[in-house]
Amino acid sequence: MTFDVSSQGFTDVIDITQQIREAATRRKVADGVAHVFVEGSTAALSTIEFEPGAVRDLREALERIAPMDSQYHHNEAWGDGNGYAHLRAALMKPSLSIPISAGKLRLGTWQQVILLDFDNRPRRRTVHVQVTATV
Amino acid sequence: MTFDVSSQGFTDVIDITQQIREAATRRKVADGVAHVFVEGSTAALSTIEFEPGAVRDLREALERIAPMDSQYHHNEAWGDGNGYAHLRAALMKPSLSIPISAGKLRLGTWQQVILLDFDNRPRRRTVHVQVTATV
Amino acid sequence: MTFDVSSQGFTDVIDITQQIREAATRRKVADGVAHVFVEGSTAALSTIEFEPGAVRDLREALERIAPMDSQYHHNEAWGDGNGYAHLRAALMKPSLSIPISAGKLRLGTWQQVILLDFDNRPRRRTVHVQVTATV
Repeated sequence: MTFDVSSQGFTDVIDITQQIREAATRRKVADGVAHVFVEGSTAALSTIEFEPGAVRDLREALERIAPMDSQYHHNEAWGDGNGYAHLRAALMKPSLSIPISAGKLRLGTWQQVILLDFDNRPRRRTVHVQVTATV
Repeated sequence: MTFDVSSQGFTDVIDITQQIREAATRRKVADGVAHVFVEGSTAALSTIEFEPGAVRDLREALERIAPMDSQYHHNEAWGDGNGYAHLRAALMKPSLSIPISAGKLRLGTWQQVILLDFDNRPRRRTVHVQVTATV
Repeated sequence: MTFDVSSQGFTDVIDITQQIREAATRRKVADGVAHVFVEGSTAALSTIEFEPGAVRDLREALERIAPMDSQYHHNEAWGDGNGYAHLRAALMKPSLSIPISAGKLRLGTWQQVILLDFDNRPRRRTVHVQVTATV
């Protein structure tokens, strides 16, 4: 199944744990995997302890690794100014697979699933959650 | 299934979307996941808008993060000069999982699957595509 | 299934290939995928040629990308001093999917699976291995 997420862009970091958990448990799979994927070339997925400090540290690190106002070849060709966003997305990648056992999503207690939207404008993002069963 | 890709190495970035799409749809799975993996410790997978500017930005960023001509402990021990390649591969990781729904691979319109070959010589790479069905 | 790994923290890099291989092959799946996941917001998974030089290069690169003694907002709020660990874990991500074909885990010859424990104290980590079969 899929769900949509509204984002402000500019490395907006959004906790999508609850949507993943609902999608994962709706299938009544005792033992399996929830495969999560965000469509698009300027967004990514990861996990983090979702508290403001850690999220801010991640945003600042990505700004050091791929600064918004650097010169990017993508911008020269396309003029859309989101070269940093394409770079961050390629480095962070759009997929994540989370185990399900005894019918529960097995994240750590302080481990939340995040969508990172790097684009330079608000976006509506499509997230896929596919549940497969173990053998 | 697997397919082979010929690469020039030196952070060669190759669009493998078409091969993944063919492998994924050949299985006639309506709803599932295509799991992609590249064998080897000097290659990785990601997604990107596959146009020359964005690809060049990614290559330049990886050169900043793990420069080819830095001193690497791997090189001191093994003398093969590809320490940067091992580092880039470990940071970028070799696996990627892409959703299939209504029989189609659900990448964004501008989101292509890429193989990154970091090694310091031409290589022939083996890529695995395993399709699993959702429950 | 799950297994536990004892770690010293401080970016301890531990080869868990053998445990993954045993878990993957125990299921007698000819063709499938082993999905690996580490619980917690200060650990991650990747692959590397597991020799001391390459491992040291990776640890030094992570120290450049997210230095232990930088100022982190997470530390200001929580005082636990492991802000760098949260950042490294979010950048490296906790999941990895490895193909199984003809009953064997299809890693490259020099490609081992590693658990990275970034926390600033010894930890006991829970690793999940879920095996799914291809269609």
